[in-house]
Amino acid sequence: MEQITIKEIAKLCGVGVSTVSRAMNNHPDINQETKLKVLEIIKEYNYVPNNSARNLKRTDSNTIAVLVKGITNPFFSPMIGVLAREVKKKRYSFVLQQVEEDEDEIDVAIQLEKEKRLKGIVFLGGMYIHKEEKLNQLTVPFAISTVNMGLPESMKKGAVISIDDELESYRMVNFLCDCGHKEIAILAASREDASVGKCRLDGYQRALQDHGIQYDDELVVCTKKDVNTYSMENGYEMTKELLDSGKKFTCIYAVADALAIGACKAIFDAGKSIPGDYSVAGFDGQETAAYYHPSITTVYQPREEMAEATINILFHLIKKEPVETKRIFNARLVLGGSTRKIEK
Amino acid sequence: MEQITIKEIAKLCGVGVSTVSRAMNNHPDINQETKLKVLEIIKEYNYVPNNSARNLKRTDSNTIAVLVKGITNPFFSPMIGVLAREVKKKRYSFVLQQVEEDEDEIDVAIQLEKEKRLKGIVFLGGMYIHKEEKLNQLTVPFAISTVNMGLPESMKKGAVISIDDELESYRMVNFLCDCGHKEIAILAASREDASVGKCRLDGYQRALQDHGIQYDDELVVCTKKDVNTYSMENGYEMTKELLDSGKKFTCIYAVADALAIGACKAIFDAGKSIPGDYSVAGFDGQETAAYYHPSITTVYQPREEMAEATINILFHLIKKEPVETKRIFNARLVLGGSTRKIEK
Repeated sequence: MEQITIKEIAKLCGVGVSTVSRAMNNHPDINQETKLKVLEIIKEYNYVPNNSARNLKRTDSNTIAVLVKGITNPFFSPMIGVLAREVKKKRYSFVLQQVEEDEDEIDVAIQLEKEKRLKGIVFLGGMYIHKEEKLNQLTVPFAISTVNMGLPESMKKGAVISIDDELESYRMVNFLCDCGHKEIAILAASREDASVGKCRLDGYQRALQDHGIQYDDELVVCTKKDVNTYSMENGYEMTKELLDSGKKFTCIYAVADALAIGACKAIFDAGKSIPGDYSVAGFDGQETAAYYHPSITTVYQPREEMAEATINILFHLIKKEPVETKRIFNARLVLGGSTRKIEK
Repeated sequence: MEQITIKEIAKLCGVGVSTVSRAMNNHPDINQETKLKVLEIIKEYNYVPNNSARNLKRTDSNTIAVLVKGITNPFFSPMIGVLAREVKKKRYSFVLQQVEEDEDEIDVAIQLEKEKRLKGIVFLGGMYIHKEEKLNQLTVPFAISTVNMGLPESMKKGAVISIDDELESYRMVNFLCDCGHKEIAILAASREDASVGKCRLDGYQRALQDHGIQYDDELVVCTKKDVNTYSMENGYEMTKELLDSGKKFTCIYAVADALAIGACKAIFDAGKSIPGDYSVAGFDGQETAAYYHPSITTVYQPREEMAEATINILFHLIKKEPVETKRIFNARLVLGGSTRKIEK
């Protein structure tokens, strides 16, 4: 079936083209009955206005790109949902671009800017450190979400929305120490990680130090090369390695809930109990942590709120309205059944 | 910092613009030393070729749109990852568009086609029934993924990639009946659902019938209005309702793993055991089902393969090459620790 034109719609309705246009655009200057009839015919024939100047304009100039590092990480799924919804509310187009593990997201953004006329960019995940010269090559406003990166004072078109990963990780490990744990193993990102993984490892080290506990390299299990860091499988394999090593520990702290769930499964498969034999704690506050059995003690990041704030701040930047360009959210320690107090 | 131009790069290198161009395009007709020097300067200044005809061409004409109904459903996350990767491999742009629960994805696609010059469309999730006239309004090839929709014979530009939801659901319930279960409750989609939810419910009914088990409406728990169907919370609430009803049953079959996990949690919270007191089975074969404790008996959909086949078939259609436009994958029953045999 050929696409029906506005002329044909007008003919079918027995009115002029301008009347059809008025009906569609909710123009006051049209007879109510005529309007209803026109809209009915439009619906019946599934008429869609064709490439008008309005449409072209909307497409070309009003696009927000969201660049995700780790698109398969379920942590981002609800955030992408909120971002897509909020961008749509503003009647902007939404483009999602995957960034590979080995790619620099700023390079990808610079390239994308060349290809599409963007109005703004959201970075979900990614690295902590970017050269100022490189960030300066981005010509449109951008918001870095969930990565607590420092931006230069002079950078007026960029914003950062995140939690303080080092501090929240510190709080979690501090809590575990307060529960009497002295041998706390950590499931960490790769040794080369310079993003949230590193911050959470830093928080772990600082908490141990404050409790007078010696940092023990044998209790630090890092993600191996070419392994999908934030996956249950990785948590399972790292924990199996730890259990097989014979090294003594009473608690596992995983820098992500997916890792913590993998850890739990490895412990159960080894015939051990949680929290009887081992306590397990995670990070992020994913839905699965709450529904696991036992539920997993974790650090809850207010992801939906963070995604809303990201779009809100980005649109302030786009409209050149004054706005705080650094927004650090508080996380919340959620106590589950996976950790317990032990004898000091 | 202003974006550096090719002229400035040439000046910095002490060469002509054409030499810079040759270096970038790996042209054989350039001195190796000069080439390395140019590339070094390009890297140092983060020079990106500006809106060339090549870039414009790539943007305007080579875009694949992926429309997802239920973008926050973690079932789709790995598929989106594969689709993005495969589209990128083909050097096409990738646009992701969310479709709201109450929207018709074909309407959204028709609108998107007007706004962007697309080469192809992928539908992830969505409804089973669309009018032929409406589908005919899509002017570019499309692939419907994970929804086993029937397309008219005459429809040459569309393809369907999925499992047979009714059959796989039948097999699961058949297995549960073979285990001796006679009172099998089902956690289903909404009563209005006309997509995978309905097919899986149909398979359940047919299996019961084949085993001479009377269909009992009180054992069918449907998702309520305005509830996020494929969520753990929904599975939890529906199971709580079922347990509170006092209705006797020995097994819960959930039409999605997320629902099954919610069901398990509700059973544990009621102080009951799995599979001792109740068997629980799911559908989809998500990672979480395997890592849950106990692991959940489920139907595994080969999602990554299905996503690869989707792009493969779509590109055959785009290139007008002959290809089978209906590809039904076999799913696999994965036995977990969440179900058991009971006395017949």
